[in-house]
Amino acid sequence: MAQVEQWGIYEVALNGPADGNPFVDVTFSAQFKYKNRIVEPDGFYDGDGVYRVRLMPDVQGEWSYTTRSNRAELDGHTGSFTCVAPSAGNHGPVRVVNIFHFAYADGTPHISVGTTCYAWAHQGDEMEAQTLETLKSAPFNKMRMCVFPKDYTFNKNEPIYYAYERGADGNWDFSCFNPEFFRHFENLVGELRDMGIEADLILFHPYDRWGFATMPAEADDLYLRYVVARLAAYRNVWWSMANEFDLMKEKNEADWDRFFRIVQESDPYQHLRGNHNCRGFYDHGKPWVTHQSIQHSDLARVPEWRTTYRKPVVIDECKYEGNIENMWGNITAQEMVNRFWLGTVGGGYVGHGETYLHPEDILWWSKGGVLHGESPARIAFLRKLLEENVTSGLTPLIHLNPRWREGASQGEEYYLYYWGSAQPGRFGITLPEGKQYKLDIIDAWEMTITPVEGTFSGQFMVDLSSKPYIAVQAKVI
Amino acid sequence: MAQVEQWGIYEVALNGPADGNPFVDVTFSAQFKYKNRIVEPDGFYDGDGVYRVRLMPDVQGEWSYTTRSNRAELDGHTGSFTCVAPSAGNHGPVRVVNIFHFAYADGTPHISVGTTCYAWAHQGDEMEAQTLETLKSAPFNKMRMCVFPKDYTFNKNEPIYYAYERGADGNWDFSCFNPEFFRHFENLVGELRDMGIEADLILFHPYDRWGFATMPAEADDLYLRYVVARLAAYRNVWWSMANEFDLMKEKNEADWDRFFRIVQESDPYQHLRGNHNCRGFYDHGKPWVTHQSIQHSDLARVPEWRTTYRKPVVIDECKYEGNIENMWGNITAQEMVNRFWLGTVGGGYVGHGETYLHPEDILWWSKGGVLHGESPARIAFLRKLLEENVTSGLTPLIHLNPRWREGASQGEEYYLYYWGSAQPGRFGITLPEGKQYKLDIIDAWEMTITPVEGTFSGQFMVDLSSKPYIAVQAKVI
Repeated sequence: MAQVEQWGIYEVALNGPADGNPFVDVTFSAQFKYKNRIVEPDGFYDGDGVYRVRLMPDVQGEWSYTTRSNRAELDGHTGSFTCVAPSAGNHGPVRVVNIFHFAYADGTPHISVGTTCYAWAHQGDEMEAQTLETLKSAPFNKMRMCVFPKDYTFNKNEPIYYAYERGADGNWDFSCFNPEFFRHFENLVGELRDMGIEADLILFHPYDRWGFATMPAEADDLYLRYVVARLAAYRNVWWSMANEFDLMKEKNEADWDRFFRIVQESDPYQHLRGNHNCRGFYDHGKPWVTHQSIQHSDLARVPEWRTTYRKPVVIDECKYEGNIENMWGNITAQEMVNRFWLGTVGGGYVGHGETYLHPEDILWWSKGGVLHGESPARIAFLRKLLEENVTSGLTPLIHLNPRWREGASQGEEYYLYYWGSAQPGRFGITLPEGKQYKLDIIDAWEMTITPVEGTFSGQFMVDLSSKPYIAVQAKVI
Repeated sequence: MAQVEQWGIYEVALNGPADGNPFVDVTFSAQFKYKNRIVEPDGFYDGDGVYRVRLMPDVQGEWSYTTRSNRAELDGHTGSFTCVAPSAGNHGPVRVVNIFHFAYADGTPHISVGTTCYAWAHQGDEMEAQTLETLKSAPFNKMRMCVFPKDYTFNKNEPIYYAYERGADGNWDFSCFNPEFFRHFENLVGELRDMGIEADLILFHPYDRWGFATMPAEADDLYLRYVVARLAAYRNVWWSMANEFDLMKEKNEADWDRFFRIVQESDPYQHLRGNHNCRGFYDHGKPWVTHQSIQHSDLARVPEWRTTYRKPVVIDECKYEGNIENMWGNITAQEMVNRFWLGTVGGGYVGHGETYLHPEDILWWSKGGVLHGESPARIAFLRKLLEENVTSGLTPLIHLNPRWREGASQGEEYYLYYWGSAQPGRFGITLPEGKQYKLDIIDAWEMTITPVEGTFSGQFMVDLSSKPYIAVQAKVI
């Protein structure tokens, strides 16, 4: 019997009608059954008369299926397979845990450390391979990436593939998808998955000269269902309704609500769903939003957003390390790292981006390629520190005077204080009275961890180095 | 005939009654007359039966006076003197000009570059002399300083002199001033004057263990009249109603309004008046406020405050260069300098302070002494640049997108762009089309001014160095 690993992809492919418009004329799905439970993902037309339906099985054991279609030749096909243990590195999809944090389905904590290469999937095989190669040694476990190509400053090149075919009139036929585009795109998503990188798929965005940002509502909806049918079985998928939804002036709040609901009802696995802002936030309180996907530069506000919406805070964009003329793309590496730390002790998760001027306009933030900056090494250092010490998530230490919020803790086991760009020569710390702690002084920029002699408890003053980007961690003994 | 320089001090001293309480029982003033104009400052009792009244004559020529008192022996004394040209460095008192800026009475522009040593006048002769010595080579032309002593972290030492005598019960007698204190204090104000430094006198503040912050209303009012009578003739005096007025919980808005009105009606010269906040602002729109004295750390908001109140913006406190454990006192020298520049291109004026840990708790911000930091040299560089190029004040360049406000100009003659902690490798600049400009690239931290080859006009891109703290100035040819 066929075998598939847990949280892998089991696919049923059948030949069916190629006439008419199979994308809209033919319905196709399968009821996958484990014991008495039924999971029914939508299938999709993949061109050349081939129909596919994919399952990400989430439990080990015997599964069976029966296909369903409005066309007799696709209806009622049956089969079965065995779901076996996941391979090394496969922890399943990421879920929200402990209100503000993430974990994989197998319980492994997921400390989200994202980056952004908006249009990397549109740059051709060579540069895409280079991007994947770069990611192998980069610290990122989430990639924000657009389905549609991008038209923006530094981004004027045509994509290799388009998501649609053109009609007889030469215009895009929004009812006719281009399977070649999607096979290419989902292949890249699979490559990320195999490297342990979540693919935060940006479904819509405003930077467009082709018309994909201004399709009619029926086309938007058809597109969402097709994307979900093809990609939901990839365990590493997150759904980002948009990059900068609020700049898409032709869509209103009801449109965004509808998009969320379509994705929510179509996705059998309930992958994470967010909506990224430019200026004002989408209402992260709405029930279909799983986490707050935020663009903002004031990382000190993370605790406020946690309190407001009671969902994980992911600051996907807080300006980028780089040196371009656009003020959102020329912060220093020090400041990029500083923002990661500020967001971390605020109890949130921060995303990276890089925008260094390049003779051929190849900026990581949009096209991928190679990294030039100094922040990734420091972000790797932070990620390692967190993965070694934080299992259930950090909670910011909010004192009465908000100026004194400079730390976070995991219960009474682990404390992490951080002073940002300030340079205190000493600082008063308060730990629980009844417990003893070991202290380390951390230089977030120099990437050093220096133990402090002795053990500590209650209130005390710790001597620091009068340098910026210093943190202190306290671990219970 | 006696001579006194313009904006100097002419003093009439008379012997009078020493019995009872001369501070409240005896009225004393003089009508000083120049041609048909009469100026009538209040006099004051200086102890030991001596009464004084002081004039800061503001016009050259023959002046005469007649004293007035409710006591016959002090009433009706007459005299005359000649007011002559001011000595070198004496430009008169500072006034508001061009809505948002300052100039001395003789028309010389005053680019306000302040520092703060709250309690320096309470540290004894030796350290006070050291502070004055330090100021000789420092870049500051304004000193924020308290009349009353200070009780606060790092500041527990008793003052040498107190402003009041104690009564028979051992408590302060708020109707009985200590002339020795005031002679000492005004001597220091005079020393600052002779060095060209404005004395921004803080009349009240909350950091008190002696009871000076919680006197009854009649004592507050008597105090204000006495201070003004003694000190208004010093041309370098500014009146700051308080440091952090909003932390003085026993005083309400009506009290602050009354204090302003008392100072306004008592001061014949209408020295500058402001009120410094901790959290919320005093309403700088009130008519007796001459300039906005602000504590705030977000220097990007200077243009907003200009627009709101249409008065000069002086950010007297935006945190201090230092390394103490208090988060308001541990910013880097780079950030201190950065804030000066941000406030400058916002069209405002920024104040310095320094709080480095010291084995004997001698921190410049409160006690004076010597400077340890790296910002003063850079502040001197900025002051020199401004004094060489700005005569009528800088106006921020507000574009439609507030993210693009990164510069200021003086008309179409002089432009100053600044990118703060960002590190652009190039930037688009727009100068008037019909004029030609010379460009310099300025490194605010390294203190270099590097001319750019050629002349510039209209829109163009300028190559920058991908470093933080870079500015560009454009001077019309």
